[in-house]
Formats: sequence, structure tokens, C-alpha cells
Amino acid sequence: MHYEQIIQNTIKTNNSTIVLLVLDGIGDIRNPQFKNKTALEYAHTPHLDNLAKESVTGRMYPILPGITPGSGPGHLGLFGYDPMCHIIGRGVLEAVGLGFELKPYDVATRCNFTTMNEKGVITDRRAGRIPTEMTVALCNILSSIKEIDGVEIIIKPGKGHRFVTIFRSKEKEIGSNINDTDPLVEGKPPIPATGKDPSSQFLASVINKFMKEGYALIKEKHPANAFLMRGIASKPKIPSMRDHYLLESAAIATYPMYRGIASLLDMTLLPAPDSIKGLFETYRDYKQKYDFFFIHVKGTDQAGEDGDFESKVGCIERVDEALPIILENKPDVLAITGDHASPCAMRSHSWHPVPLLINGRFSGVDDVKKFHENACNNGGLGFFESKYLMGLLLANSKRLDKFGA
Amino acid sequence: MHYEQIIQNTIKTNNSTIVLLVLDGIGDIRNPQFKNKTALEYAHTPHLDNLAKESVTGRMYPILPGITPGSGPGHLGLFGYDPMCHIIGRGVLEAVGLGFELKPYDVATRCNFTTMNEKGVITDRRAGRIPTEMTVALCNILSSIKEIDGVEIIIKPGKGHRFVTIFRSKEKEIGSNINDTDPLVEGKPPIPATGKDPSSQFLASVINKFMKEGYALIKEKHPANAFLMRGIASKPKIPSMRDHYLLESAAIATYPMYRGIASLLDMTLLPAPDSIKGLFETYRDYKQKYDFFFIHVKGTDQAGEDGDFESKVGCIERVDEALPIILENKPDVLAITGDHASPCAMRSHSWHPVPLLINGRFSGVDDVKKFHENACNNGGLGFFESKYLMGLLLANSKRLDKFGA
Repeated sequence: MHYEQIIQNTIKTNNSTIVLLVLDGIGDIRNPQFKNKTALEYAHTPHLDNLAKESVTGRMYPILPGITPGSGPGHLGLFGYDPMCHIIGRGVLEAVGLGFELKPYDVATRCNFTTMNEKGVITDRRAGRIPTEMTVALCNILSSIKEIDGVEIIIKPGKGHRFVTIFRSKEKEIGSNINDTDPLVEGKPPIPATGKDPSSQFLASVINKFMKEGYALIKEKHPANAFLMRGIASKPKIPSMRDHYLLESAAIATYPMYRGIASLLDMTLLPAPDSIKGLFETYRDYKQKYDFFFIHVKGTDQAGEDGDFESKVGCIERVDEALPIILENKPDVLAITGDHASPCAMRSHSWHPVPLLINGRFSGVDDVKKFHENACNNGGLGFFESKYLMGLLLANSKRLDKFGA
Repeated sequence: MHYEQIIQNTIKTNNSTIVLLVLDGIGDIRNPQFKNKTALEYAHTPHLDNLAKESVTGRMYPILPGITPGSGPGHLGLFGYDPMCHIIGRGVLEAVGLGFELKPYDVATRCNFTTMNEKGVITDRRAGRIPTEMTVALCNILSSIKEIDGVEIIIKPGKGHRFVTIFRSKEKEIGSNINDTDPLVEGKPPIPATGKDPSSQFLASVINKFMKEGYALIKEKHPANAFLMRGIASKPKIPSMRDHYLLESAAIATYPMYRGIASLLDMTLLPAPDSIKGLFETYRDYKQKYDFFFIHVKGTDQAGEDGDFESKVGCIERVDEALPIILENKPDVLAITGDHASPCAMRSHSWHPVPLLINGRFSGVDDVKKFHENACNNGGLGFFESKYLMGLLLANSKRLDKFGA
């Protein structure tokens, strides 16, 4: 029996409320330019510190030591879905990142406009990085292709030269075990789609027809007179939070990517204003209506990726300032953590373990008096993989029975 | 997808240098005779302590809690090869421990001279522990058997009554799924070799012929008038560090066993003088030429196995004294740890977690100010299995891409 099975076998429901507050990219490393502190250490956070004094803390490896997760695996882990087993394909992530709601048999692909010469050879894989407006106009033209061999075709423009194509089969599952058509280098023609199994062969032939028809429609639109497809992927079969944990879940997230991941797990998407205060107020307004709230703060990651230490500190301080809105409407279990670290010094996601705080009637209290990376090294939860967090939250909310007699 | 696959899928190369300094058997337990300190706590180590202040630390379980590793699994783990999946057979470890370089289809066996009476029954399994010189002479006699059924036979004397026989098949793989011929008790005859599959049956018949011919050659050499074979094992199929991590690796190790393990992973064996200073100077001299350096210090383990606390302290202090040679030629990532603990009080390898320090531009810094077992309990890396160390070192040297989007 493995962990997810134990959860399945011991789960029960009750009236408790769980809030998981994700400060995206919150983990960091100490910064010599700022008194050798991390942003969390540097920030003035009286409410977080007081909360830490009444909570249990620890650190989590998003995947395993050394592995830097993208947003997909980072969040799947937080929701208790083993990110090494449940893989969200690139096309799907791109589609949900554009706010597109996928249906069960949908196959999504990342596409980009490209320049092709009269010999059918790619001369610029990014079509001279045409602006978004041009991509929108070209997507409109391609949208005249509504259906091929019974498969509905839906096109969504993205940023710059990028767009997403969704192949929607209404009645039966279609395969997506198909190569990228992008040769990845200039000077070569697009690669025809080939399916690696019979049901993928069907979709591959649809894709090849789509490319042929689409190229004909935009052939005069130099430099964007063709397109390439990558990351062809089916909507993953991830059990919903309802099926998995008997939880009615809601997401309060501003950014499409995180709304998209939440919707893949069948969370309800609640209003998500642009301010942190606004996010927390949404929780306050809906707190009676759901069992589980995923609140996503993007600013910490953005600041980390920009290498902007002061902005990361500022975002943390805004979280701290707004925190009383949650604390005055205290859920039974409150967890604060990140999906991964985004150290300012690296301007990117990283592998470093994230700090974690769990507060609840049965969480216990350790000797950690501040909520930051190094303080949490000594926490009562130790170091563990993020995929075990949901089990802890369910346990703290008394939603898990004893395992074995 | 499992951990090693993620590494495979995200690995890339760059110009960074990684040094892994292994103090063999460094972990210990506190010793009541020496102010209740471990050797690392007791030793005067100003350079290590200063380095700890600028590093991130933690502790590693070589395998899993409670498991005491031999040198093979201990080192495989450090190099990121799951020691529970990649098994180096005893015969192979013995052969590489004698400095023998195995080829792909080689099968190696541990052998020992033994005394047999006129009825073919073993009367002394160790032939009265004959001295090494006698073993060398007897191996010379056996070496007249050059080949049996197309399989080349190579004999290497070891210490005391021990030697190694290598069965070399040049053209095809031969099986090694064969029982020990050693009955493990006196009063019984040697057990004939039996192969458990067709290709092992072939080698078993070669082994039986080798025993017959060999026994005839030394039948007058009482007390060493026969020999027994154990740990019959093929050269393991372990991907090289180059294939696995795109790393050009070099080993600076004095002892044949560790040189042997390194050569199984296709590391280049660099000059390894007898002094710790000399080992570090080799790194300095070659630092431009390789991506990864494995530096092996044996003295700490030897002292632990001898139960010689003061000698362990002395060896640690010699490492500390020579450390500036590495620090003045600082690699991008420096890790210091052990392959396992060898507590002086136990005079043997043990299961205790080893201390670990990682220093690099992106390692982060925790609150640990000394490099010893108990200080590292509070480190920013927590406790984890050694097999994840390589992932951390690769990540710290920016050789791993993000996993998922």
C-alpha cells in the first residue's frame, strides 16, 4: 500500500475548513547585499512571527533534493498529487495558462508562428517574434477551420508569436502520443505528425491536415506564413480534490496558470482581485461555502524571478499586513508555504526547500518563533517532500482515520 | 518518472567545477572518554568551521535509517547511483580493490586457498591462513591455466590466503548466476558450480574445469592444496558519470578499492600521493581539466575501524590544515561529507547519518557555524538519503534545468 492509498482508505469528511496560502517562490537564500538575510528574514512581519509562535513549522522539498520544479509539478505536490507520477503536459499547461477550460478528451498543443520559404523550409522559428496583435489576427484566420474528421478545433492566441490549439473529440478519447512538428532548428521543414499508437495515429492525421489547411490560409502572411506544434498533450487524468479527499475546494488565484491548475483538479474559481488584501477578503466572504481554500500570491515569485529583493520583501510585508483578515476568520487549519523557491540571486525557480507553517488546534507548537527559511530548519515537522503536505492538512483537520487497527 | 530519470531529462553541461571531498567513515557518535565529543567536534578545525559559516549543511543517511553500508553502496550513493538498485558483486569489488581494471564481459570471483584431505573434504577453509608470499607463488602456478573453452583466465593474488580469478569472455556476455563453491563449513567437499540459466551454465562448466585443473596443479602444496570460490559476479552495467551526468570526472584516491569503484564509473584516476596535502595538490594541478573531482581520504575510516579516536582527530586536523589548498583554488561547488559513519566506539562501519556541507554561490547559508555531526542537525538541507547528493551538486553548479513548466 502506498501513501495515496492510505489517504484514500482513511479519508472522511467533516465541517472543518482548511486554508493553504501559497506564497509562490517564497524560499530564498541569504543575500549579502541585504544584511545576509533572505527576503523573509529581512521583511517586517509581526503577524507571521506571532503566528509562527503558535504553530508548527518545517521545510519541504518540492520534489526531491536538487530538483527545481516548474509551476505545474510545484503545485501538484502541494495538493498531494505526486508530481513525479502525475505529469501535466506542456500543451495542457499552456492552454490552462491562457485561461482555457479543458474538457475530458481534449488534446492541447503549444503552437508558434514561424517563417517558411518557398521550398517549405523554416527560416525563422519565431516568425521574427511578431507582436501579440498580429498573432490574434492570424489566429482569427486559422479559426475558420472548425473541424477535421469529427475533431473540433479551437484556437487561442497567446503572447508574442505563441498560440494554443485544442483538438476536441466529443465522443471518444483520442491519443496524443505524437511527436513535435517543430524541427527545433532552422533550415529544415516541419516534421509531419506521427502517432505512436492507433488512436494517436488518428489525431496525427488530423494534425497533418490542420497544418496543410492552416498553412494555405496564411501563406501570404509573411513573416508568419506557417506554424509549428510542440508539447502535444491530453488533459491529464488527475482525480479531483472532491474524489481524492472528499473536499469541496476553491481557488483564489489571480493568474491564469494557477487558476488553470486548480480547475484541472475541479476546484471552484472564486473572484480574485489584484491585491493581496482582496484575495484574503474573498476567502472571508466565501469561508462558509468550501472546505478547502487555495490562495495564491504571485508577487513573491515575480520579484524572485526579477531578482528584485526589495519587491519580494514588500510583497511579504503586504501579505503580513493583510494576514489579520484570515486570522480573524480563522480556518481550522491554516498552512503557509511556497510551491518552490525563487531566490532573488538566481532570478529563477530553484531546488531549495521552502519554509512551512501549519497552525491549527492539533498542529502542535515548536520552538520556532519566526517564519523564515532558517528558523524553520528547527521546526517540529522536519524536512519532507511537499507531496505529504495535504496528508498533514487533512490529519490536522481530523479528516483522516487511523491506518490499521 | 523516478528521480534518476528527472536528472537524465534535465541535465545539461557547462564550465563549472564540482569537488566532492569524501572523508571515509567520518560520521561518529559522542565519546565519553573524550569530553563527550565526536572526533569532528573534538578536532581543532578552524578552516572547516569558517567554511561551515558560509555554507549550507545537513545530514545524510547513506542508504536508509539503520542500514550500514559497505564501501561499494556507500560510494555509489554519493555518486547518485541508487545503492539499492545498482549492486556491485563481491567478486567485482574484490577485483577492483586489487586495482584490476575489469572489461565489459568480465566475471570476477573471490577465491581463497584451502586445505583438502585425500577424500576431497575441506579440513581448513583458510589453508592455515598462509602468508601473502605463498599465495603469490601459488597464483603463479595457477596462472599456467590461460584459457578454458575460449574463456581467458586471469589470476590476481590478494592478501593472506585470498586471491581473485577473472573469467574474461572476449566476444559475448557470459552469465554469472552461479553458486559459491565454498561449502562454508569444514568437513564437506567443495560444491560444484551450477549455472541458474544457460549462459551461466556455460561459465559454471568452465569454473568446474578450472577447479579440477587447478587442484591438480597444487595437489602437493599442502596446506594450500585446493581453493574455493565465492561472490561470482559480472562487471555491473552502471552508466558512467559521463553518460549519466555529462561530467568529465576524476578520482583522487590512494586506495585500490576506491580507485576501483571510480574506474567502474569511468572516472579518470589521477595521481594520488599518500598525504592529504598531496591529494589536494593533485586537485589544484588538474582543476582546469575535469568537471568533477572525487577526493577520497581513507584515514578517518581506518581510525574509526581501529577504534583509535586520537588518530581520527589527527586525520581530521590534517584535512583542515590542508583545506586552504582547495579553498584557494575554489571550485564552483564544494561538498564535504562521508560515505558512511565509522564510530570509534564500534570499530566498524555504522548506519549513523553523516554530516554534509555544501558551499557554492547558490548553496545558501544556514545558522550552522561548525562542521560536525550535531551542528549539522540544524542545517538548511535537513536529513536525506545520500543518493540525492549528486542532484544537489548538479543543481548548485547550474547543470540541471527545471522539471516541468
